[in-house]
Amino acid sequence: MRITGLKRRMRELAGSAQAAGRLLARSPGAARDAALARAAELLVARAAELEAANAGDLAAGRAAGLSAALLDRLRFDRRAAERTAAGLREVIALADPLGAVLAETRRPNGLVLQRVRVPIGTILMIYESRPNVTADAAGLCLKSGNAVVLRGGSEALATNLALGRVWAEALAAAGLPPAAVAVVPTADRRALDALLAMDDLIDLVIPRGGEGLIRAVAEKSRIPTIKHYKGVCHVYVHAAADLEMARRIVFNAKVQRPGVCNALETLLVDQAVAARFIPECFRELRAAGVELRGCGLTLALDPAAKPAAEADWFAEYLDLILAVRVVNGVGQAVEHINAYGSRHTESIVTADRAAAEEFLGAVDSACVFWNASTRLADGQQFGLGAEIGISTGKLHARGPMGLAELCTYKWVGRGTGQLRE
Amino acid sequence: MRITGLKRRMRELAGSAQAAGRLLARSPGAARDAALARAAELLVARAAELEAANAGDLAAGRAAGLSAALLDRLRFDRRAAERTAAGLREVIALADPLGAVLAETRRPNGLVLQRVRVPIGTILMIYESRPNVTADAAGLCLKSGNAVVLRGGSEALATNLALGRVWAEALAAAGLPPAAVAVVPTADRRALDALLAMDDLIDLVIPRGGEGLIRAVAEKSRIPTIKHYKGVCHVYVHAAADLEMARRIVFNAKVQRPGVCNALETLLVDQAVAARFIPECFRELRAAGVELRGCGLTLALDPAAKPAAEADWFAEYLDLILAVRVVNGVGQAVEHINAYGSRHTESIVTADRAAAEEFLGAVDSACVFWNASTRLADGQQFGLGAEIGISTGKLHARGPMGLAELCTYKWVGRGTGQLRE
Repeated sequence: MRITGLKRRMRELAGSAQAAGRLLARSPGAARDAALARAAELLVARAAELEAANAGDLAAGRAAGLSAALLDRLRFDRRAAERTAAGLREVIALADPLGAVLAETRRPNGLVLQRVRVPIGTILMIYESRPNVTADAAGLCLKSGNAVVLRGGSEALATNLALGRVWAEALAAAGLPPAAVAVVPTADRRALDALLAMDDLIDLVIPRGGEGLIRAVAEKSRIPTIKHYKGVCHVYVHAAADLEMARRIVFNAKVQRPGVCNALETLLVDQAVAARFIPECFRELRAAGVELRGCGLTLALDPAAKPAAEADWFAEYLDLILAVRVVNGVGQAVEHINAYGSRHTESIVTADRAAAEEFLGAVDSACVFWNASTRLADGQQFGLGAEIGISTGKLHARGPMGLAELCTYKWVGRGTGQLRE
Repeated sequence: MRITGLKRRMRELAGSAQAAGRLLARSPGAARDAALARAAELLVARAAELEAANAGDLAAGRAAGLSAALLDRLRFDRRAAERTAAGLREVIALADPLGAVLAETRRPNGLVLQRVRVPIGTILMIYESRPNVTADAAGLCLKSGNAVVLRGGSEALATNLALGRVWAEALAAAGLPPAAVAVVPTADRRALDALLAMDDLIDLVIPRGGEGLIRAVAEKSRIPTIKHYKGVCHVYVHAAADLEMARRIVFNAKVQRPGVCNALETLLVDQAVAARFIPECFRELRAAGVELRGCGLTLALDPAAKPAAEADWFAEYLDLILAVRVVNGVGQAVEHINAYGSRHTESIVTADRAAAEEFLGAVDSACVFWNASTRLADGQQFGLGAEIGISTGKLHARGPMGLAELCTYKWVGRGTGQLRE
């Protein structure tokens, strides 16, 4: 397609989404829940149709030589449809975030001033090949009254378009504007570039995927972007740690699900307990298949570990690999984390309250824990319900980003003729 | 200076600011207040020295042919020093925003989870020639525990550097790191470009000034930016308005201080009351020197008004000029505002509660008022204390941005060995 035609189509799509979002923002929670319920039903009722569309994507992916892992992420079968429908029903059960009065004051001049929660407006989601994001993200945006423009990976386009038809039908059935969930109907990258310049129509961009994708989007976008960068999470085993608790936490944080952003990547062990802690801890980790990469002091205690290079301290392995460094005191642990970490989640294990509070205060990360696994940094675990991601930025949303973080606020003042003196 | 040397100096400056900010974040409120008090004293005690530096800037400005208005904004005399000192004392009187527990829950697994307010980190302020911003912005950033890098207009460089010395001395006297308030010591634009790329050292950019400056910064910055764009504020006089109240509100919003962002720029008058409202309203405004630019229906009622062009609906005059349009009902008023407005502040005047609530809900602006002047959209008027600006964006901060909006939060979890099941 010619670029001018493509830009015009994208402006139409984003403009229709904005207009639909303005209606959604004022719709009753019951209507939004009805659309979510209908979408959950349709996902299962149309499972055969969705599987057929997905089969096309999978065949094209196989022909293009996609890896087994990528093909697995691309698959959207009946079981995936049922799982996604169950997720939407969980979202229905969450409280409507809209309309909440976050603060109210009566000013000396009699003006009654409220800060009221409202949707952000139009959100552009950019993600990779997993088609379930098309349903999960749309569900959270719809519940929070936001219109969403969905731009998934090109390999999943037929599946995403089929999911888009489910959303359009579900919205219409609930009396809501179908344009509130828009699937970008082309894999042309220039369409994405055009959307990223439309700061009059789109209020927020959320890229989800590898760090490269996120950086590329953030650099190109003129629209505010919430970044879910990598999670280089740390556990620091302090001199006063209960070493058995520390081993359990380290094992859980590294092994329970290594492929996610809140899994442990670097273990810091205080030199005061390194000789007592490392041998038993490493034995357990090795038994679970974990590869260990240590600093010089670690290697002195366990010559079987591999030497860690500078790059290991920055690494998000997302795999059964753990970097280990021996440090001297809370100060050095904090210094390491603030220098190499990704501001996601870090935990100290200690029985010393003062040391714990020093760590919790000084570490500059979204989530800081005392005597708990980094794997607990999660919207469900925090009681926020489903999350659209975990923000490693500091503006607007930090850490798990649920329905409330998909909203902004407006100031509403009700007066009786108040003037500025 | 060579660009590599310049970049290295800017990294040192921003890196020192970040390190200082991390100390500031954990400093007692009393120490931050002591630094503010010392700065207020020094501003007056050093007034002669500050005036001498300012005289140099003024002389250079005159030689360069700056307008009288620009020279006036550049002036920093004893009276300006005293006014600025008084502003800092008001900031001291505000509550310390840091450490507030914004939410606390005990999760089913026993983890005690808090959302705690913390500073954003390092803030880069970019502004034009007014040197008082150097003191006002530094005061708000210091009170909220943020380090600040100040990049004012090149015409004010000597004055800003002299103000920077006051801050360094005040911080040191309070036992706080002087690098927490850093004045960029060069007018070289490449220094600014370098800073705007340092997303590892700087957390937030706040540009203050004309729309051109703000757009240029937002386009270039890799760092999240909070924009204080123009205020194209509206008053809508509804069919059921108390017309005397409406005239008082319109007059106040337009005339009381026309050069500020919350002043009225476009008046919308319902056709049901236009013939009764416009003649008397226009008589009052003309008597105050206001130029009126109307739509066709307005001109039919008042042929002395100038015809408004399409550009007038987008215009932020900041002057005694008012655009006037006759509209048909709340729907058309909202449509006009959402199409042409800048999402700052709009007000409806009406005795009809249902019409008012329709307007308050449907207008997509930071501040929406019922029966009140747009001039009330202001941090002091809202009871937030001094403001660093009024955000027209929707992310992080919307409307007046005070101390709380200069903060973010972190999640703090205290456990007893909790794992992810």
